[in-house]
Amino acid sequence: MLPNFLMKRVQLTPDRKALQTSTVTYTFREMMQEADLRARSLYAQGVKSHMRVALRAPSTVDTYLMIQACLLLQVELVLLNRRLTREEIDYQLADAEVSRIITDDFSFFEGCAIPLISLDDIREAPAISYSTQIERDATASIMYTSGTTGFPKGVRQTYGNHTANAMASITNLGFLPTDCWLCAMPLFHISGLSIVMRSLLYGMPVYLMEKFDALKSAQLIQEGKVTIMSVVAPTLRAIIEEMEQREWQASPKFRLMLAGGGVIPESYIERANALHLPIVQTYGMTETSSQTATLSSEDSLRKLGSVGKPLFFNDLKVGASNTPYEHGEIYVRGPHVTPGYIGKFADNSPLQDGWLATGDLGYFDEEGYLYILDRRKDLIISGGENIYPAEIEKVLARHEAIVEAGVCGVPDEQWGEVPAAYIVCDSEVREEEIIQFCAQHLARYKIPKHIYFCETLPRNASNKLLRRELRAWNYSKSNM
Amino acid sequence: MLPNFLMKRVQLTPDRKALQTSTVTYTFREMMQEADLRARSLYAQGVKSHMRVALRAPSTVDTYLMIQACLLLQVELVLLNRRLTREEIDYQLADAEVSRIITDDFSFFEGCAIPLISLDDIREAPAISYSTQIERDATASIMYTSGTTGFPKGVRQTYGNHTANAMASITNLGFLPTDCWLCAMPLFHISGLSIVMRSLLYGMPVYLMEKFDALKSAQLIQEGKVTIMSVVAPTLRAIIEEMEQREWQASPKFRLMLAGGGVIPESYIERANALHLPIVQTYGMTETSSQTATLSSEDSLRKLGSVGKPLFFNDLKVGASNTPYEHGEIYVRGPHVTPGYIGKFADNSPLQDGWLATGDLGYFDEEGYLYILDRRKDLIISGGENIYPAEIEKVLARHEAIVEAGVCGVPDEQWGEVPAAYIVCDSEVREEEIIQFCAQHLARYKIPKHIYFCETLPRNASNKLLRRELRAWNYSKSNM
Repeated sequence: MLPNFLMKRVQLTPDRKALQTSTVTYTFREMMQEADLRARSLYAQGVKSHMRVALRAPSTVDTYLMIQACLLLQVELVLLNRRLTREEIDYQLADAEVSRIITDDFSFFEGCAIPLISLDDIREAPAISYSTQIERDATASIMYTSGTTGFPKGVRQTYGNHTANAMASITNLGFLPTDCWLCAMPLFHISGLSIVMRSLLYGMPVYLMEKFDALKSAQLIQEGKVTIMSVVAPTLRAIIEEMEQREWQASPKFRLMLAGGGVIPESYIERANALHLPIVQTYGMTETSSQTATLSSEDSLRKLGSVGKPLFFNDLKVGASNTPYEHGEIYVRGPHVTPGYIGKFADNSPLQDGWLATGDLGYFDEEGYLYILDRRKDLIISGGENIYPAEIEKVLARHEAIVEAGVCGVPDEQWGEVPAAYIVCDSEVREEEIIQFCAQHLARYKIPKHIYFCETLPRNASNKLLRRELRAWNYSKSNM
Repeated sequence: MLPNFLMKRVQLTPDRKALQTSTVTYTFREMMQEADLRARSLYAQGVKSHMRVALRAPSTVDTYLMIQACLLLQVELVLLNRRLTREEIDYQLADAEVSRIITDDFSFFEGCAIPLISLDDIREAPAISYSTQIERDATASIMYTSGTTGFPKGVRQTYGNHTANAMASITNLGFLPTDCWLCAMPLFHISGLSIVMRSLLYGMPVYLMEKFDALKSAQLIQEGKVTIMSVVAPTLRAIIEEMEQREWQASPKFRLMLAGGGVIPESYIERANALHLPIVQTYGMTETSSQTATLSSEDSLRKLGSVGKPLFFNDLKVGASNTPYEHGEIYVRGPHVTPGYIGKFADNSPLQDGWLATGDLGYFDEEGYLYILDRRKDLIISGGENIYPAEIEKVLARHEAIVEAGVCGVPDEQWGEVPAAYIVCDSEVREEEIIQFCAQHLARYKIPKHIYFCETLPRNASNKLLRRELRAWNYSKSNM
């Protein structure tokens, strides 16, 4: 059994700072009061423990407090990505069989049959009591990740998963009661939610940035008002640029940048070092409730490009033999790994003998440091968001002029990667029409940034699309 | 499942410092090599995984490495207190049904039927392979604590217990990869062994002091060569005195003194504060694999005399209702609590509905801080060692001149408390004779420091000895 995170935390360190922004501050005691008000109101509106409830809202203080209320009540919280289209969201709501939706934007859900609860509508309601203990295997949160089939899968993250992740992380990153974590990641992503969980488990304040602001981040880092921050490559670059431009250096109090969501270019790490910004590269995913491997800052230059070693309670495996430099699929094992999916994929366990097959390709060097060669099943990571080609291809194939479509990621200065589409048409159609069609069905970040018209697509003998060939086409194009 | 602690640690941070003394240093890789040599040698001498093996040796580097070897091999290690007499040790060896004894002192075990293995006899032996995974419930260590009956009980400490304790501790004390823990506690006590476990789990160096040295400790603290230290009241006082005398202050790198094993006088905390020595008071016991509650340093003056609040994954209960200021027995629950005893008491579970009844009396204040009123069942804590009156009384009663005997703790300037004996005799006997008799059967620290001859002992209606009355007698004596 585990304690009810917020109740236990407020019992231990009620007056410690829990949450702050540029304008407000909450102690854990104040956070408990706010969470309790919201939990009572939810309860009065029919929300019960273990009920599945979706949340679609920006990463604001109100949303943060609502997440606390949901944890307090122990609902299974489905965190919806605000960038998705209504069509994409409807798939998730149906798959998760959600009972209620909490949102700041009723108009988005127009015509939806599921009862809506307003993020701001906190009703006076009688006191309720919360269970002080939580089953380790109870689902705390659910996040959808797209997959190779193009059908997103709802990943269960249990209280045990979140705890295991936070506790393994602390042995690697360390923790001081004076730490403060800057959260400029969306709360609906595991990169953001894992900060919320660490805050409760460690008794650590979070500085919440509702929307990433490079200058403000740089300022907080320079002033030592925050000591840890999670970044992806584009946000790291933006902060480095602000600091270089102003000739700022990180405060000695600033301990580390946890950099995930794809490869961090080596030049960033060198530039960051010059600013006294220690970079700790990490490899994690929704299925592992965040970090699974991490490169310590002492190794960040010596092992450029590596995502490090597993955390203490985790295991990593590459292929069948773990032979140094032999390429293979990456497998992950440990108490932080999801027990599985909900809905359509509930019976498709992602585990084989306790190992999660990530689909990512990589290798170990002779010292056991992991290098990622290729993201799972042609995954595209664009500004920290995961995009699966199959999902875009399925939408493209629905267009009446398109016979077949292939999508792959291509390098992009700003986002790291963006999707490019290769299409075969049987009638005339303009690029803009296709883009517009995609916009109706896909979140903006998934809309192909390049569209190429082709005669045929590269396929293997069994007619399987060869997306790596597409990428090779792209490289040769960009070299023309 | 948990990883094999040392194997995992050496996989992650092989070149980090693991152990040091004033003369030697070992990295985790070097420690693994030393542990492996010893484990092979043990194996060649018939020691197998899960076999019960006793260790009696001083807290030296050799012993530290031997403990690592035993963890690597996953034997059930019975840690023998070197202060005990042969008679006391023989009881434990028989109760634990030990298969081998590792020791530096064969003469102590003269005539013992159990095969002895020399601490220093490291034989060349073929390579063996170790299991990389460990069951959470497997017994890592066994330590004997005396009990109310006077028969010591062998407490099981599982790998899960040690892990839970180290991980709960880190959320309270924090951890930095630059930390170094000064261990001047015996390795056969949980206060010492828990430092060994934290070192493996966190990847943290231990500075091992084979015998407590106040001046050397003060020097390491003043120079910032260590950042955390575990102390009991007498060792804390000695360090404070050294520092005051030399007008030293703790280095800013020194983070905290974890002070346990009985109450720390308030004056020590104030004097320590003046030396920039943050004191963190803790409450723990063999049955909880060390810390169960801890007072943070920010509260050490505001909550003088309290042992703080439970750690994050632990629960505390006082009496039936937890009402503030109501006195009652202290109960502990959590993943760090022993599953039970071995041997004679294997069937006497110490748990009631998952709660360990400590026998200690205490109360909570209105903010939930725990205060200890009285140690379990008249327990005497003398210089950090637990002494149960019943054990001494049993020995006294064996003396032919003694009709009945009662023992209680009385305050002592140097040791905090020492045992005092009240005896009723039916023939003449001198104090020295009784002391000598005790010395034959009891460890030195258990020998009564005061002996009082009485006409009768205070007993209640059901003839139960009232040890609290004895103490009252003592107080009135010392006020005479």
